[in-house]
Amino acid sequence: MARVTASAPRYDVVGIGNALVDVIAHVDDDFLTRHELVKGAMTLVETDRALELHRALPTAIEMSGGSAANTVCGVASMGGSAAYVGKVSADDLGGVFDHDLRAVGVRFARAAQHADVPTGRCIIAVTDDAERTMNTYLGASSLLAPNDIDAEVVAAGAVLYMEGYLFDRDDAKAAFRRAASIAHDAGRLVSLTLSDSFCVDRHREDFVGLVADEVDVLFGNADEICSLYEVDDLDTAVAAVRADCAMAAITVGARGALVATADGLVEVPATPVPKVVDTTGAGDLFAAGFLFGLTHGHDPVGCARLGAIAAGEIISHVGPRPLVELRTLI
Amino acid sequence: MARVTASAPRYDVVGIGNALVDVIAHVDDDFLTRHELVKGAMTLVETDRALELHRALPTAIEMSGGSAANTVCGVASMGGSAAYVGKVSADDLGGVFDHDLRAVGVRFARAAQHADVPTGRCIIAVTDDAERTMNTYLGASSLLAPNDIDAEVVAAGAVLYMEGYLFDRDDAKAAFRRAASIAHDAGRLVSLTLSDSFCVDRHREDFVGLVADEVDVLFGNADEICSLYEVDDLDTAVAAVRADCAMAAITVGARGALVATADGLVEVPATPVPKVVDTTGAGDLFAAGFLFGLTHGHDPVGCARLGAIAAGEIISHVGPRPLVELRTLI
Repeated sequence: MARVTASAPRYDVVGIGNALVDVIAHVDDDFLTRHELVKGAMTLVETDRALELHRALPTAIEMSGGSAANTVCGVASMGGSAAYVGKVSADDLGGVFDHDLRAVGVRFARAAQHADVPTGRCIIAVTDDAERTMNTYLGASSLLAPNDIDAEVVAAGAVLYMEGYLFDRDDAKAAFRRAASIAHDAGRLVSLTLSDSFCVDRHREDFVGLVADEVDVLFGNADEICSLYEVDDLDTAVAAVRADCAMAAITVGARGALVATADGLVEVPATPVPKVVDTTGAGDLFAAGFLFGLTHGHDPVGCARLGAIAAGEIISHVGPRPLVELRTLI
Repeated sequence: MARVTASAPRYDVVGIGNALVDVIAHVDDDFLTRHELVKGAMTLVETDRALELHRALPTAIEMSGGSAANTVCGVASMGGSAAYVGKVSADDLGGVFDHDLRAVGVRFARAAQHADVPTGRCIIAVTDDAERTMNTYLGASSLLAPNDIDAEVVAAGAVLYMEGYLFDRDDAKAAFRRAASIAHDAGRLVSLTLSDSFCVDRHREDFVGLVADEVDVLFGNADEICSLYEVDDLDTAVAAVRADCAMAAITVGARGALVATADGLVEVPATPVPKVVDTTGAGDLFAAGFLFGLTHGHDPVGCARLGAIAAGEIISHVGPRPLVELRTLI
């Protein structure tokens, strides 16, 4: 699937996504009902609704998040090298986001700042069943445009990893196309996570085109893959994705993951954990382990096992960034 | 000790202190050595040093802190009513601080904002032994002046609770004197926490004067009380504090706490916890439980027991604000 590589990559993974700070609080089911929130869903909200939900939220903690950002931090924690392209503002939360990437050794190819638009934030309500319900105010993060793509950084990554959540505005779609083209021209792999079935639903035609034209490795859960191809059963979706992509890694919740390649379909179970505390970041960290494996000579089963280990660590505590060096778990 | 009360208090406790957001990260002992940090101490730092330490810090979480603010949130969590006087800026971290007070029902009598000075923050490095080493950039929080004291709010609290950390600049010292005078004129109790033995050492004369003139209930640990009276043994310090204050609650680490009153000295053991994770906020929450007891008809032993329960909850997890409603533990 990779073309001839011109030079050795400087990074294992280069991520592009919505640069967000998470605002995390524990709530009861009543809170979700009272505020008409759909458990487990990610909803985009405007400033007013974000302020309203924030005001209603109990005591919260703030920590860096953003799906692809969590993934590249996971890659670094596994012992890999990574860079990240994304947009924050020149405010406190932008500083928090920047700090937490640098702190784990991820190169932040920070796009030009918008002085007037604040850093994006994701309000995450965690219920007792460890499910997270997310309301995202995108702010500066969604304003990524083709010119914000650092071509040198993208060309220097063995795998480009793009986050479907960001694939919303025309500018961002064009930025993805530009990044994919830079990566392929440099002989690199292009991967994409579908992020969310609602997100896929809103932009199905563009997603289908991007996947067919540019994506070598596709990430998604069963719902997202089925939504992409508008089919009800996973077998049909798997057949379709095998026609489009060299490899697809499909998470199936507590069961684990499937990996589809030209050679067939393998299933890898989830890593058992004593107590699931917060599933925020499970998919992001699965992708981290998988991509670390892919860039370190592992076969698909090995990649999925590394993904399961990384996801297992992240669901054992609150927050989407590893609390231990993942390299010590492998 | 209380004079005649003119009207029923609207709040059990009104706190005044440094309004800070905590930036918390796990580090190893090497980190402390490398950055010349004294384990367990609180050090005030200027902007440059704060930036340098923040840059060096691993992945962090942000959550509201501030000693007296933690205490009033603890009082609210016990089921009491509380208000808080403090100074933040009109930035993201100021918003975080404000949110977390309101979220637990604490009235925030927010002082006028300084547009040019950012919200204060406390960089907390937590080591494997659960000790926290704090480096505080005070920012807007330290600029509290006599005019920032909301007289109506202070007069409406059964107990005024002031944080020694803030007792540093002349303006803040004058603000404490003004607040104490308002409280006493309204027939309320005045309490003070010494906060830190270095802090006491820097301003001993002013502290001694404030304690002798205005303080009905004094909080501190053994080091702080000994530092206040410049004595080496706790017995001598206890005798001195009994001459100055109607009541003193002295924490003695893992042993628990002593309460000195005109009637004598009692000792109450610490509440055992399965695992001490982070001692940040232990003293603040001891004061919360104690003050809740004091304003709800408990005797000194009962007050100290409530303090021990609240402190026990807070040291069982990362962060200085309760994760469960403390009222459910009593």
